[in-house]
Amino acid sequence: MISIYEFDQLRPEEILNRDIRAEAGVQAAVEEIIGGVRARGDQALREYERRFDGAVLDALEVSEEEMESACRRVDPEFWKTLEMAADNIRDFHRRQIHQDFVVSERGGVVMGQRYTPIEKVGVCAPGTPVAFPSTILMNVIPARLAGVREIVIATAPEADGSISAEALAAARIAGATRVFRIGGAQAVAAMAFGTESVPKVDKIVGPGGVYVATAKRLVFGLVDIDMIAGPSEILVLADGTCNPKYVAADLLSQAEHDKLASAVLVTDSRPLARAVQLEIEAQLDSLSRGEVARESIARNGKILMVRDLDEAVEAVNLIAPEHLELCVDDPFRLLGSIRNAGSIFLGKYAPEALGDYFAGPNHTLPTSGTARFSSPLSVDDFVKKSSFLYYSKEALEQAHRRVADFARREGLDAHARSVAIRFEREEEERV
Amino acid sequence: MISIYEFDQLRPEEILNRDIRAEAGVQAAVEEIIGGVRARGDQALREYERRFDGAVLDALEVSEEEMESACRRVDPEFWKTLEMAADNIRDFHRRQIHQDFVVSERGGVVMGQRYTPIEKVGVCAPGTPVAFPSTILMNVIPARLAGVREIVIATAPEADGSISAEALAAARIAGATRVFRIGGAQAVAAMAFGTESVPKVDKIVGPGGVYVATAKRLVFGLVDIDMIAGPSEILVLADGTCNPKYVAADLLSQAEHDKLASAVLVTDSRPLARAVQLEIEAQLDSLSRGEVARESIARNGKILMVRDLDEAVEAVNLIAPEHLELCVDDPFRLLGSIRNAGSIFLGKYAPEALGDYFAGPNHTLPTSGTARFSSPLSVDDFVKKSSFLYYSKEALEQAHRRVADFARREGLDAHARSVAIRFEREEEERV
Repeated sequence: MISIYEFDQLRPEEILNRDIRAEAGVQAAVEEIIGGVRARGDQALREYERRFDGAVLDALEVSEEEMESACRRVDPEFWKTLEMAADNIRDFHRRQIHQDFVVSERGGVVMGQRYTPIEKVGVCAPGTPVAFPSTILMNVIPARLAGVREIVIATAPEADGSISAEALAAARIAGATRVFRIGGAQAVAAMAFGTESVPKVDKIVGPGGVYVATAKRLVFGLVDIDMIAGPSEILVLADGTCNPKYVAADLLSQAEHDKLASAVLVTDSRPLARAVQLEIEAQLDSLSRGEVARESIARNGKILMVRDLDEAVEAVNLIAPEHLELCVDDPFRLLGSIRNAGSIFLGKYAPEALGDYFAGPNHTLPTSGTARFSSPLSVDDFVKKSSFLYYSKEALEQAHRRVADFARREGLDAHARSVAIRFEREEEERV
Repeated sequence: MISIYEFDQLRPEEILNRDIRAEAGVQAAVEEIIGGVRARGDQALREYERRFDGAVLDALEVSEEEMESACRRVDPEFWKTLEMAADNIRDFHRRQIHQDFVVSERGGVVMGQRYTPIEKVGVCAPGTPVAFPSTILMNVIPARLAGVREIVIATAPEADGSISAEALAAARIAGATRVFRIGGAQAVAAMAFGTESVPKVDKIVGPGGVYVATAKRLVFGLVDIDMIAGPSEILVLADGTCNPKYVAADLLSQAEHDKLASAVLVTDSRPLARAVQLEIEAQLDSLSRGEVARESIARNGKILMVRDLDEAVEAVNLIAPEHLELCVDDPFRLLGSIRNAGSIFLGKYAPEALGDYFAGPNHTLPTSGTARFSSPLSVDDFVKKSSFLYYSKEALEQAHRRVADFARREGLDAHARSVAIRFEREEEERV
């Protein structure tokens, strides 16, 4: 049964166990896979796909015919759901597109900042045992809105070499440009270094198990990556007006992800806390992934009692959860006090699952307390900025002595000279 | 003498040697320092400062009296320069502040994105042998504009324990909240873990040698970091109208930074190329850091001949330089074609040094080709985003079957139930 604690009696490190150690041996295995893909390209990809996914592959890339056939095969109602979700996601993410700016308030001075899309992006999309079309929508749509020219999906095939029709439908609707039937560390390596078939990309995004995460960590620098996601987390802040059935169901929706997932309730109502305890037990029995959820609740599930909603907000900001539900009567009242949280679900009818699949905000979120300094995946992750600076001769002439003096004080003569040299002859002439 | 190559006869990896290996032994030394600071806090900081900077420290923090006395001691003309530079930097960076947004076009649905500042930031500022007040301005001002509450500077002291008055003046003008006389890996460790005197921060930014870089890499995840900067780079794109003296001076202004720095000229004019070769030799003799610059030019200096400006732009986008100068008659004509560059200097009177100290854009820029996917330091680096989502009961009721179906197709029953459970009783009642 999920345990109840007094928040003010826990030290911060006791609240959540977020010290996730990489499994021994994984790094060596991943290094070998990366080395294999670098050295032997497509041939290595075929070997690893046979070994890890049991698939004997002919073409690594999904053809246009396969794509079209998959789109025709998908349940039309689900196609409709995918399109609605994609529309919602587009609607939200297009507000994230920033404008270039220019500052030209002084004569002879023009400076500004431009956004340009990253040229090529690779998306890791889990393919087995179950494909996640939602991952494809959430990663491809912001890249597309950013203007990325080549968006490559890598997803592990079934043993017969096929890719889920629903995943391919999501790829089509989201606007991916190419799909490859490769998964795991070999997919990351292929996109980081390029092979005969797979293009080398500039950034790799998307979730995966420990092999994908380790591979992303190892290729980071050569290419960019989105983040190394830790286990999923939910914090439900609920007062006594909440239905314990809803709270329990929302906590379990995180707990079923992973044995290491965390589900935490913060409440000022002891009756609610007790009712949620019982509800979790009752609901666990009928879940298909009940065993995973039970272990996750036992390891990382907690109910934290607080004095009042102010202390509840303090707990939220300390924990910096990936997902935060504010299950209270007037959730907007608390919004302004929340400083650290990835995604915030307001009120009693915004369960986290609504955001995972459908509503519009991204479901790739900062875990393990990194919401203190990082952000949900967004269009920003698929663009980069450049600054630019123009000075006229007259403008530089006005500033040049100060710039050269500054450079000399930092001991950098050549910096000083690069400015001074542009006015030397004229100064000589004036003498 | 700097060598001339034909651009189209080099393979990409031959253009710049960017494969920087960490020095052996550094990681072990840094791990020991981090362990020492974690275990023994201030006491360890005092030991390391005695060992590495030869300073026997009493107070680790710079007091308000020291700060004021330093500000009074600084040359008034330099104080003026610092204030002008700070104004320019503020003027540029405040355009980077983004607005929150809300999407509320459908009844019962409100979603949006909020920016919140990172709470505490640490800035590593090189203190010895020369202090870099420009680093302090460039790192502190964007943090301040972002709304960061605590901005801590760590800078190595002189052997007598003092900190450069010019650095302290820059800290005051930029708006830093606290200054500590600690440098190197021990400064990074102190700010990542906190000690009796030094606050634990959420993000560490700023440059440093290999010890600082390695320490930042090791604490990354626990805290955020800005980037691991490689050696500095300049690419000057110049046509035959350019004065070879200016081009040579600008190339040398990078070369003097570091023996590993890169200075590359891309030009379609062979007479300019030859004149720049001779000018570099002539100017090298009179530079105080001529030895560093000479070695850097010999290692990584190159002149790349191109057919025309189109091929020159192709070279720029392939190299993705940290600093790019467009020393041509109509530089704005090329701006739209530049896809990969950290900071772009337009025309013949915008030498890179102008941007390093004074003009306004940031001087912390992506090196080693990472301009393909990363950006200059900006206000964005000191904020994080959170999304929020509100659905009314009626809005969720409309969507709930599609959301639950989506969840079930991804094999996540508890996700489906968390949505469905909110309508169960009513559906039962309707039966």
